Amino acid sequence: MTSIRDFGGEFKLIDEITKPGGAVVGVGDDAAVLKYKKDKYLLFTTDMLCEGDHFRRNWSTPYQIGVKSMEANVSDIAAMGGLPTYAVVSISLTNDMTVEYMKQLYRGMYSVAKRYNYKIVGGDTTHSKTMTINVAMLGVVEKKLLSLRSDAKVGDLICVTGDLGKSMAGLKLLLRDVKGDVRAHLMPKCRLHEAREIARYCNAMIDVSDGLASEVNHICSQSNVGAIVYGEKIPISKATSASAKKLGDDPVDYALNGGEDFELTFTVPKEKLGKIEVNCPITVVGEILPKDKGSRISYNRQIKPLTGGFNHFKP
Amino acid sequence: MTSIRDFGGEFKLIDEITKPGGAVVGVGDDAAVLKYKKDKYLLFTTDMLCEGDHFRRNWSTPYQIGVKSMEANVSDIAAMGGLPTYAVVSISLTNDMTVEYMKQLYRGMYSVAKRYNYKIVGGDTTHSKTMTINVAMLGVVEKKLLSLRSDAKVGDLICVTGDLGKSMAGLKLLLRDVKGDVRAHLMPKCRLHEAREIARYCNAMIDVSDGLASEVNHICSQSNVGAIVYGEKIPISKATSASAKKLGDDPVDYALNGGEDFELTFTVPKEKLGKIEVNCPITVVGEILPKDKGSRISYNRQIKPLTGGFNHFKP
Repeated sequence: MTSIRDFGGEFKLIDEITKPGGAVVGVGDDAAVLKYKKDKYLLFTTDMLCEGDHFRRNWSTPYQIGVKSMEANVSDIAAMGGLPTYAVVSISLTNDMTVEYMKQLYRGMYSVAKRYNYKIVGGDTTHSKTMTINVAMLGVVEKKLLSLRSDAKVGDLICVTGDLGKSMAGLKLLLRDVKGDVRAHLMPKCRLHEAREIARYCNAMIDVSDGLASEVNHICSQSNVGAIVYGEKIPISKATSASAKKLGDDPVDYALNGGEDFELTFTVPKEKLGKIEVNCPITVVGEILPKDKGSRISYNRQIKPLTGGFNHFKP
Repeated sequence: MTSIRDFGGEFKLIDEITKPGGAVVGVGDDAAVLKYKKDKYLLFTTDMLCEGDHFRRNWSTPYQIGVKSMEANVSDIAAMGGLPTYAVVSISLTNDMTVEYMKQLYRGMYSVAKRYNYKIVGGDTTHSKTMTINVAMLGVVEKKLLSLRSDAKVGDLICVTGDLGKSMAGLKLLLRDVKGDVRAHLMPKCRLHEAREIARYCNAMIDVSDGLASEVNHICSQSNVGAIVYGEKIPISKATSASAKKLGDDPVDYALNGGEDFELTFTVPKEKLGKIEVNCPITVVGEILPKDKGSRISYNRQIKPLTGGFNHFKP
């Protein structure tokens, strides 16, 4: 018998056991791409949040948990260039949960649905020893705006929105009981509107849910290209730097290997970068190279393979 | 603070905290009904299975767990009169889980997808202390075949497919460690093909996932009608009767209050009943009455309110 850890972690497991479906794009992007209308695709995605691993009830308010469960899914739809339309919610409740708690949780969910203009249309409520929330979401994307992980081209710039590592910084502060800015971990916000603009110009796009290293490697393997990432260029906020300093860590590690920033990583031809107009910083952090160059990071005067990413079973 | 139990259980909670969405039919049927094409609706449903509550790893093979997770969702699509088209799967893995285990689980899922001709197109794999599986499913239904809980008419016959109480019988045998037929609990099978035929004639339809009492009450409250159920007419198999006898129970209690039979309950005008051609027994178990009659059961020479159903938080 092979443990999932020994096998190479959950991403390798998913590759191994999932088969390509009949979708336009099947397993392996942020959302499945399904036939819909002449000029549009239907997007279909799902995300599970587990107590202990994705949230703790003594850290987060129920409102925050509700928000996070929805933002994670909208982020997947955004990364495809689409807009969310409908969501269904499954929740396993525990015996100690109160009606007031559940109302706050749903209030968080509905606040996100209102912000991004989609509807929560159903769900399943059940019971378990731990609290688990699953959101499944539908979205729609114009065919010309569809942004896949697999369309990066050699010579593209690798860019990110906003700043990275903030969620991991918050998580580490909470884990070590150190005071600091934990908002980005407790209540992340995705980049839906920015993604719609970026989708007009980018070649490939993915949301940063498992750390920059993991996302760039997904783009490389699915686009059949290589990449170089410049560690010194990765955007880190002052708050994240301050948290890392307190904790004795390098914030670039958070950016590369942290989960749940819900920023966007995209690749774009040099001449198109200037055309993108969004209300958040966009930073060039690397370049797409031919496949034989592999995926590497230049940092602290060294060049190393780009490894890592937030894998729950990583060795 | 109000416990969910004191509040009246999970169904009341769902009513309280969910708002009608922008769907054609929102929260409160087996699946959400969404606009799609001129002559068809899109169906969207989700179901969560939790270790301990819905399955136990020492009772079920991973293949069986995979089958059950899918049959439960197909059953929801079937109850609307539709056909499943696409599914996405979320799984939280535990540290002790092996690659072989996961492969068997997915083999079970793919076997159901093949049987009913839909595609598994994506998912989310994560980690937790307990194993949880969530399946979200899309389906399509011709507008003229759409079967809701809310369309029962006074005078309709209340019918069920197959036989009831079999899953609860299996569960009780397993819980009390008594030998007997537990197959219906470990690997239930829904009624997709039968539902497509029934949808041509029925007024209202629902799948039996929480017990007949609960399903008839859902139809009554959403159709604004009353009902009488004849306890003696409820179809119970010899195997279920034998199990109940061993356990000292009344199998009619299993049928009324057991979960996960995944048979169909539907209401149909008397003159249309004979037109339904399916390869399974159909039994008339009651009649739809005016709302002021309430929902009641006639059994053992008594008439009582029809209460119960499998509610994880029932008082």
